Amino acid sequence: MLGDKPDWKLKVRAWVEKDGRKILGPGRVELLGHIDRLRSISAAAKQMNMSYRRAWGLVKDMNEAAGGPLVEVTTGGSGGGGAVLTPLGQQSIALYQQILDHLAKAASDLEKPASKK
Amino acid sequence: MLGDKPDWKLKVRAWVEKDGRKILGPGRVELLGHIDRLRSISAAAKQMNMSYRRAWGLVKDMNEAAGGPLVEVTTGGSGGGGAVLTPLGQQSIALYQQILDHLAKAASDLEKPASKK
Repeated sequence: MLGDKPDWKLKVRAWVEKDGRKILGPGRVELLGHIDRLRSISAAAKQMNMSYRRAWGLVKDMNEAAGGPLVEVTTGGSGGGGAVLTPLGQQSIALYQQILDHLAKAASDLEKPASKK
Repeated sequence: MLGDKPDWKLKVRAWVEKDGRKILGPGRVELLGHIDRLRSISAAAKQMNMSYRRAWGLVKDMNEAAGGPLVEVTTGGSGGGGAVLTPLGQQSIALYQQILDHLAKAASDLEKPASKK
């Protein structure tokens, strides 16, 4: 039906909650990806032009909201310690990507001209 | 995949833009529905606990963003005039409902246990 109005674009935002509390959203999942790659919350924050304080707050909030840690802070080491994703954190990135792919497909179905459905 | 985490809930928000400018979203479509039913912007605003000023601003913005009016204000009359939806306004409500239905279906697919997909 949106296909009849080719200049009208559908936008979709998706997030995951538990007990009404947000676990995952686009920014949080981007942060998880950077942490996974850089093994550091501060380096990940820098990539997103975000303060360390904000990134740390998001990590803490995700861990609490999910009911189990997505990110684990590794203490010690000469570099002052780093951070890694837990299996649940890895799974969360994959899950969110699957959600985006599925919704993108649903959105593109809506943008097909009605006659070609 | 969300089916493996039955207490993780997917939330989706959808809106329609043209040239990067919002035309329709949940609140706007709700407002259109009330205007359609009540034939009055001020009565519709009241239903939503919204000021007339805000409702009128939303109507003006929708009309401009869509590139054609969704709501037409009817002047005159002893009641001080009212408002009606144009065919484009009617179509917009139907379109948005179709979007919601389609995305709800996509979301429910994601919440099925993986084994039953």
